[in-house]
Amino acid sequence: MRTKEDVLERTAEGQPETALAPATMMALVYHGPGQRRWEEKPRPRVLAPTDAVVRITTSTICGTDLHILKGDVPEVEDGRILGHEGVGVVEDVGPAVLGLRKGDTVLISCITSCGTCDFCRRNMYSHCRTGGWVLGHTIDGTQADYVRIPHASSSLYVLPPGVDEEAAALLSDIFPTGFECGVLNGRVKPGDTVAIVGAGPIGLAALLTAQFYSPAAVIMVDGDANRLEQARSLGATGTVNVAEGDPVGAVMALTSGAGVDVAIEAVGTPAAFNTCQAVVGAGGVIANVGVHGKPVQLALERLWAHNITLTTRLVDTVTTPMLLKLFLSGRLQPGKLVTHRFRLSEVMKAYDVLGNAAREKGLKVALKTS
Amino acid sequence: MRTKEDVLERTAEGQPETALAPATMMALVYHGPGQRRWEEKPRPRVLAPTDAVVRITTSTICGTDLHILKGDVPEVEDGRILGHEGVGVVEDVGPAVLGLRKGDTVLISCITSCGTCDFCRRNMYSHCRTGGWVLGHTIDGTQADYVRIPHASSSLYVLPPGVDEEAAALLSDIFPTGFECGVLNGRVKPGDTVAIVGAGPIGLAALLTAQFYSPAAVIMVDGDANRLEQARSLGATGTVNVAEGDPVGAVMALTSGAGVDVAIEAVGTPAAFNTCQAVVGAGGVIANVGVHGKPVQLALERLWAHNITLTTRLVDTVTTPMLLKLFLSGRLQPGKLVTHRFRLSEVMKAYDVLGNAAREKGLKVALKTS
Amino acid sequence: MRTKEDVLERTAEGQPETALAPATMMALVYHGPGQRRWEEKPRPRVLAPTDAVVRITTSTICGTDLHILKGDVPEVEDGRILGHEGVGVVEDVGPAVLGLRKGDTVLISCITSCGTCDFCRRNMYSHCRTGGWVLGHTIDGTQADYVRIPHASSSLYVLPPGVDEEAAALLSDIFPTGFECGVLNGRVKPGDTVAIVGAGPIGLAALLTAQFYSPAAVIMVDGDANRLEQARSLGATGTVNVAEGDPVGAVMALTSGAGVDVAIEAVGTPAAFNTCQAVVGAGGVIANVGVHGKPVQLALERLWAHNITLTTRLVDTVTTPMLLKLFLSGRLQPGKLVTHRFRLSEVMKAYDVLGNAAREKGLKVALKTS
Amino acid sequence: MRTKEDVLERTAEGQPETALAPATMMALVYHGPGQRRWEEKPRPRVLAPTDAVVRITTSTICGTDLHILKGDVPEVEDGRILGHEGVGVVEDVGPAVLGLRKGDTVLISCITSCGTCDFCRRNMYSHCRTGGWVLGHTIDGTQADYVRIPHASSSLYVLPPGVDEEAAALLSDIFPTGFECGVLNGRVKPGDTVAIVGAGPIGLAALLTAQFYSPAAVIMVDGDANRLEQARSLGATGTVNVAEGDPVGAVMALTSGAGVDVAIEAVGTPAAFNTCQAVVGAGGVIANVGVHGKPVQLALERLWAHNITLTTRLVDTVTTPMLLKLFLSGRLQPGKLVTHRFRLSEVMKAYDVLGNAAREKGLKVALKTS
Repeated sequence: MRTKEDVLERTAEGQPETALAPATMMALVYHGPGQRRWEEKPRPRVLAPTDAVVRITTSTICGTDLHILKGDVPEVEDGRILGHEGVGVVEDVGPAVLGLRKGDTVLISCITSCGTCDFCRRNMYSHCRTGGWVLGHTIDGTQADYVRIPHASSSLYVLPPGVDEEAAALLSDIFPTGFECGVLNGRVKPGDTVAIVGAGPIGLAALLTAQFYSPAAVIMVDGDANRLEQARSLGATGTVNVAEGDPVGAVMALTSGAGVDVAIEAVGTPAAFNTCQAVVGAGGVIANVGVHGKPVQLALERLWAHNITLTTRLVDTVTTPMLLKLFLSGRLQPGKLVTHRFRLSEVMKAYDVLGNAAREKGLKVALKTS
Repeated sequence: MRTKEDVLERTAEGQPETALAPATMMALVYHGPGQRRWEEKPRPRVLAPTDAVVRITTSTICGTDLHILKGDVPEVEDGRILGHEGVGVVEDVGPAVLGLRKGDTVLISCITSCGTCDFCRRNMYSHCRTGGWVLGHTIDGTQADYVRIPHASSSLYVLPPGVDEEAAALLSDIFPTGFECGVLNGRVKPGDTVAIVGAGPIGLAALLTAQFYSPAAVIMVDGDANRLEQARSLGATGTVNVAEGDPVGAVMALTSGAGVDVAIEAVGTPAAFNTCQAVVGAGGVIANVGVHGKPVQLALERLWAHNITLTTRLVDTVTTPMLLKLFLSGRLQPGKLVTHRFRLSEVMKAYDVLGNAAREKGLKVALKTS
Repeated sequence: MRTKEDVLERTAEGQPETALAPATMMALVYHGPGQRRWEEKPRPRVLAPTDAVVRITTSTICGTDLHILKGDVPEVEDGRILGHEGVGVVEDVGPAVLGLRKGDTVLISCITSCGTCDFCRRNMYSHCRTGGWVLGHTIDGTQADYVRIPHASSSLYVLPPGVDEEAAALLSDIFPTGFECGVLNGRVKPGDTVAIVGAGPIGLAALLTAQFYSPAAVIMVDGDANRLEQARSLGATGTVNVAEGDPVGAVMALTSGAGVDVAIEAVGTPAAFNTCQAVVGAGGVIANVGVHGKPVQLALERLWAHNITLTTRLVDTVTTPMLLKLFLSGRLQPGKLVTHRFRLSEVMKAYDVLGNAAREKGLKVALKTS
Repeated sequence: MRTKEDVLERTAEGQPETALAPATMMALVYHGPGQRRWEEKPRPRVLAPTDAVVRITTSTICGTDLHILKGDVPEVEDGRILGHEGVGVVEDVGPAVLGLRKGDTVLISCITSCGTCDFCRRNMYSHCRTGGWVLGHTIDGTQADYVRIPHASSSLYVLPPGVDEEAAALLSDIFPTGFECGVLNGRVKPGDTVAIVGAGPIGLAALLTAQFYSPAAVIMVDGDANRLEQARSLGATGTVNVAEGDPVGAVMALTSGAGVDVAIEAVGTPAAFNTCQAVVGAGGVIANVGVHGKPVQLALERLWAHNITLTTRLVDTVTTPMLLKLFLSGRLQPGKLVTHRFRLSEVMKAYDVLGNAAREKGLKVALKTS
């Protein structure tokens, strides 16, 4: 059943496709809570004039994918190809796509943005009226041989030849997330003292990108000694292991009782939030990055007079051009968070590893197709 | 026992005081929860080189004074003269006071600031290491014939001759509070839709100062029909009476379901806070002005992805120079909130009126000495 | 008689045009310096999937059009339809256009923006890689029955039914220009003192939009007594007639010698620029709006130590959504600048009037088609 | 004639000074253009209640001191002790000084600020009504055994024990100057391309502090090969030697024709300014740091449409607390600019060296008293 796509493809290309084109591809498919399969799926095609189709060369797995598999994201339907991060090569573009050509190596943004709606004009691509987080969520994603990218002009970024693709792939989601939701919302300034609660991939991305603004101290708070050690090697000036009890007391001791200028919540639990609101100093910022499933109790009876700011944000990926400049100039080394490498066809095994991230000392996996 | 003051006074004036100087004055004094008296007290003198003594010509009563009388502010001691707002005439200045002379008419800031500590340099006068909110709190206040003002150079503002003093007196506290904690923290922009929950004096000060930034709509939310009517006459484009039920639904209806750009909490209760967090739109700001006695529940399970900002602040009075320019040019008319006038010596009666503010339709009282 | 629309609609829908379509329209055409004609031209059609064609209902003439006619803008070719402002009705849209439908009444932005290139992402639509100021400049413009608008999704704004079209048309160019280049770049704040040098349409647009931020004083400087009188009626608190000599002295006198916080240059001459740099106070901003044909001498030997900021900008029209909210809520009344009204077919006469703007007391003309 | 000082000193100390106190000290004194002497001067005392007297332990010489000696700063009078930078130990404080005690090691700010006037409240300490740049200018300075510091509370910064004093002394002037006037005014952002024209001590301070914001590239432009080599070792990613001709072409080549995001003028000549205005890209900033003696020609006929910002500033030293945090945490190493060391008593020789800075490869000298 190729009728509808045939027509659109002809529109896009101006002529019919040859009979030799491969009609299928392999992909990691969600089949309800706890169910995932590496299976054959139709290869995507350009459907709208603003679409592009990208052949994946590097993909990866996000903590959010694990949440989907747990059934925590009910709008993901049975049959959905997962994945919202990756790098690939443009295979086809619709006639309204600007600035992209077949053969371009591109970074795929986890956020799809039209660039023209009211939210996009406010730099809130996450709330794009016809985009936002759709890949591997409401449309098929990047853990596959090919992916269709709507609004391609503003949702793909051309990479120069010879780029380190597995490092670049981390700019799809976790680096803009840590940077925008944590560091920029937290308004990290030179000389600041920063606490980051949660040393998972996003907390560590916040740690690396916080250093763009030269804080005097960055304290990482986590319960995993291995991750805290990694944090030290990535620039943390202090670490607090919550397994040793009283993280608030420990952070306050490290700040001589003053509290921190910026507290970044990169876990998504009431406990982590509570640590943040206990350690933030007068005039400070709590920047929430974590995905929360429950309300939290805000100590407004104390904080009302403390001149604090609390921010939330779904990543907008508006800083991707900035992050790319920093990556390409060598000032940002996202590849440091890649702990495991697989072929994309081994993605089922890669999920098993990340499902035991602590034991496997896993942060990010690179899934390569070549 | 006047020895120490005598010495200091001689230093300040360069010569001894005559025996005829009045040694006492009248003042409104707190004597524990529920107890206040208009009584004789020693007249204050310059104690530190940076002090000034001001003869009060106009004072007023703040909602906070009523809280103190209920015993809600335990650090206020028996014997304390209340009041942290007012206008007066400089009687005496210490030798290190800059920019002030005996005879100057001055606005008294509710916040005392040294101008040189780390917090003052961050424009957080509210947290001044040797100041902050001290008047009528930890030192004697302005509901008296005279008041001593520490750090006078940065805590008093010279007013031009002929100024409307009862209007000016409202710039001591409620206008900077509504403006800084509500409007500036809320980042009200031209064209915005703003909801202000609470139409008391501070909510109305926020309403008047929000208009400096030309919002397209300002919706006032309160349970008092009279105050909502006053809000309309002061520029509110819509009003919601919580007594009629479902204020959230009413605000959402007024915004066509989009929610507001800025929600200002000017009550200090979980209910008012909940209204704010329910009506703020994606990308919006909740600016807390209210004094809270209890924690609130923050709906982070929903808001984490809504790109919202929540702010708290104790008024810093850093905008007093700006507010004075607006007042003196006629762009701000704070006097519109004065509903009752008394002589300062009738302050006991004025407290009675404000204790029944709803019935008396009272907002602010002007207490005059001449 | 629906032939015309039918044809275009079919083009958009993927089938051939009938032979009955009217092929021409009337337009104001540039034929080299000093030469303009109202003549028949081919009616524009959708060429790219992101195009729209708009039937003009209100157009207007800009000072820039007069410059083009003088030959000051050499890249404008013989045969070009002039005009970059207007309101109309969408006749046709390409298949990639979002958020617009045939029949929508739309405001046409003077700046065409793709919304996705690097400059558009920096909110510099004026420098869009495939747009910017093109209408009536490098492609045909709006002084015609129809106009083709590239990148229509981000270059047109839907207006609600019943809107005042001749007022709305002033939001195409002069209001965003005065607001962005003058007021926003000038960082006008509540309580500021502002000088605007030049009381032409753009200077007056700056005057009206400066008031969004509640300056304490706005001083207009011009040589035309009529325009200064209009400025007074539009909110200027002071006026200086350069014909009376020494405008710098006059502004300094009005500011008690302190100079202004913001000086807006809305003329485009060394003399006007010199006035701005002479009257700006320490810490102030000079916001250049004028189109300059010559370099100016900057008094850096004096200003290096005065903490001043000088800005330039080609209008980006990024504030059009904000201006529309203010217009639709009644906070902005752009129609006050319309001094003359003509039918579009009388555009030749309208040019004659604006060519003698001072004598005719002309600011903006409304050119209506119905 | 010590009467007046005697009295003040007794007030400050609470008891009379002993007869043994040394009444004189040694100092570098200006005696008109080209004339300087190391000679005996009266030792300064506390004159106002807000004064402190500091015993100098480390001083240094600024380019401005050389200008004074050339007669370029006519308000400096014969007999003035030069110097506005240094570190010392508090010897005495007036009774209104907060936060400082005899024996504290302090950094002396080159800018004296009351902290309470209108300019200080706007963070423009450089324009303080009773301060600004006064040391070694309108009152005696720091190239002496002792110096009196007015407004000591906000003009001195306590240093912790064991600090590297010769590094700290560079925070008096050149680091806040390069940072505030160049980097902050230039709004250097992560990923930016920056050009700094002038690799003298202040240009190099801008280079070091620009790195707080992680630019992708910093290009230094100078005519001295040695300084450019030093710039490379301090983090410049590219250098342009103006002696090789066409610096504009060289910078444009290094930026692939795009120009720079930020151009910092750290020389003070029309030629250096011209380089800046020729290399700044659309949307960029020119931040002037240089002291100019002549006007410059601003290419407004080209730049009016380029969305550029040009800033000027006399250093305010409002970032001294931030710079101290960065210095004390090891993120800033100002000591790298010290090329020569002398005893303070050898200051005459130190001037000779800096008078031949190029030949001597001199940047900053440390003048030590112990």
